Amino acid sequence: MMSERIILGHGSGGRLMHQLLREMILPLTGAREILDSAVFDVHETRLAFTTDSYVVSPLFFPGGDIGVLAVNGTVNDLSMVGAEPLCLSLGLIIEEGFEMEKLEKILLSIKTAAEEAGVPVLTGDTKVVERGKGDGLFINTSGVGVIPEGVDLRPERIRPGDIVIVSGSIGDHGASIMASRNGFYFEPPLNSDTRPLNRLVRDLLSTGSAVHMMRDPTRGGVATTLKEIATQTRLCIEIEEDRIPIKEQVRGVCELLGLDPLYVANEGIVVAFVERDMAESVIETMKRRPEATEAAIIGEVKETPAEMVLLKTSMGGTRMIEMLPGEQLPRIC
Amino acid sequence: MMSERIILGHGSGGRLMHQLLREMILPLTGAREILDSAVFDVHETRLAFTTDSYVVSPLFFPGGDIGVLAVNGTVNDLSMVGAEPLCLSLGLIIEEGFEMEKLEKILLSIKTAAEEAGVPVLTGDTKVVERGKGDGLFINTSGVGVIPEGVDLRPERIRPGDIVIVSGSIGDHGASIMASRNGFYFEPPLNSDTRPLNRLVRDLLSTGSAVHMMRDPTRGGVATTLKEIATQTRLCIEIEEDRIPIKEQVRGVCELLGLDPLYVANEGIVVAFVERDMAESVIETMKRRPEATEAAIIGEVKETPAEMVLLKTSMGGTRMIEMLPGEQLPRIC
Repeated sequence: MMSERIILGHGSGGRLMHQLLREMILPLTGAREILDSAVFDVHETRLAFTTDSYVVSPLFFPGGDIGVLAVNGTVNDLSMVGAEPLCLSLGLIIEEGFEMEKLEKILLSIKTAAEEAGVPVLTGDTKVVERGKGDGLFINTSGVGVIPEGVDLRPERIRPGDIVIVSGSIGDHGASIMASRNGFYFEPPLNSDTRPLNRLVRDLLSTGSAVHMMRDPTRGGVATTLKEIATQTRLCIEIEEDRIPIKEQVRGVCELLGLDPLYVANEGIVVAFVERDMAESVIETMKRRPEATEAAIIGEVKETPAEMVLLKTSMGGTRMIEMLPGEQLPRIC
Repeated sequence: MMSERIILGHGSGGRLMHQLLREMILPLTGAREILDSAVFDVHETRLAFTTDSYVVSPLFFPGGDIGVLAVNGTVNDLSMVGAEPLCLSLGLIIEEGFEMEKLEKILLSIKTAAEEAGVPVLTGDTKVVERGKGDGLFINTSGVGVIPEGVDLRPERIRPGDIVIVSGSIGDHGASIMASRNGFYFEPPLNSDTRPLNRLVRDLLSTGSAVHMMRDPTRGGVATTLKEIATQTRLCIEIEEDRIPIKEQVRGVCELLGLDPLYVANEGIVVAFVERDMAESVIETMKRRPEATEAAIIGEVKETPAEMVLLKTSMGGTRMIEMLPGEQLPRIC
């Protein structure tokens, strides 16, 4: 049963958002399944296409700003289906009265991030809304990529026995934003993990067909992403709490604010499902890249219980992982 | 000299927006020239890519709503570079508290408009912002299209002697929105001209290489579009007031509100620059389509005075046409 009005939880990436998508947006618009990117063919070429709007608050946060996030987020969505990102679009919705100096800073971040990822901004659009009808700046980036021949990353390729890998420590992005909103500061600083993943993915795909599927666990965190995949594949994903890399500072912020790092957003890590025999060599390949030095095996795929994510806790128990139920961290990206 | 803060005029499509683009957005992001769509090659295929955010107010207006506008606007931007639109993305930024019923109505409009244009929505994103940090609903649509071999529409192809054609009466979209904001009603109703132009463009391109360039004169209207093109090509565009099709109701709204229809936004017409000898046959082709029954020759391209748009008025005088200087109609699309 859907509510009569939109609530913040509909944007959380969790259960409410999935309900809105499944019951309304997908059937009404005819849009396809929930994926990082849509994949389609033109002539003999396989293309990927994705879009994301960014409404993060604050606009500037430890380790980045809305501009960097918007570039990396879309580069990463393309990368997750194995595409080499070709170009980005940039849609700005600016609130009247927004300081030109801040806009300039954010545009410069976009330029720098686009150069770093090696993906140009090719087209854009600028709209201005009256004071009080926006919140400084919202950004949409869409992107187009090309999927190299032979690359085939899909949930259907996941099989029982596959190994689950994360490329880095989890929760950095969400925790750094929540820390900054609450005025917590750390030494050394806790930064967002926003970064482009296209080069890491290119290296991963060079290992052949060992990688079956990838996702970047943004809104809703690793927990929500795994639950989505378990549901889609009708398989069980079992992960071990002790093997999941989490920074001490992230643990600290989460404890203070009553958050579970498994549900906290990431903007620079990938969860990969990998052929069992190849897992060690994939980890080695990942660790050679600076963005994945903490890469770790965190679990595996099992046949049953179907559609479940199980967490083996440090205490020796087993906990069922569900999607983020409502709203945890509004406007995290 | 740029102001210290964003003002509404920066989103008008006119002079201020061009200044912001030229002095800040293009140099800082590295984005290319201001065009309806970016064009790039993948393997042997020429693709077009475009983005637009829609912040129109009110969300529902005579003849359409924000959803229809968002689909048609992006379909049309792709069409203007001669591309056959392949797919769209849909980014929603929803304000907390927005009525589910309105959202459903708009999503249904999107579905209907996408079906009518024959262009599917392939991917999307949903964000929710707190009450008071948005204005009901903002939509971003981006789109990808493929440019058929041999199609080459560029300002550089415009030559002195080319004929300027509009595909229909001007100002309908802007005038209908302004009328609705001001509580004017007409019998028969004055509707927005929002419509997909991809089929009209396909027919136009079937006439061979007669069409040199096309633009859809949205924000800033026909005047701003022509001035942009005169500046880019360093040629003169001379148009005749008496030949420009304008509905009586549009004239009426503009007179009441002190607007010039030449600067009022359109969402379903095209301005085409056409080989002189082929102009009559192009007009005939256009008129065969229901969306261009009012197609008309409105002027021609001359060598000098360079970078000028001249309007020969009904009274026998000549007036210089400049870009929309500041803000005329905020949030018209």
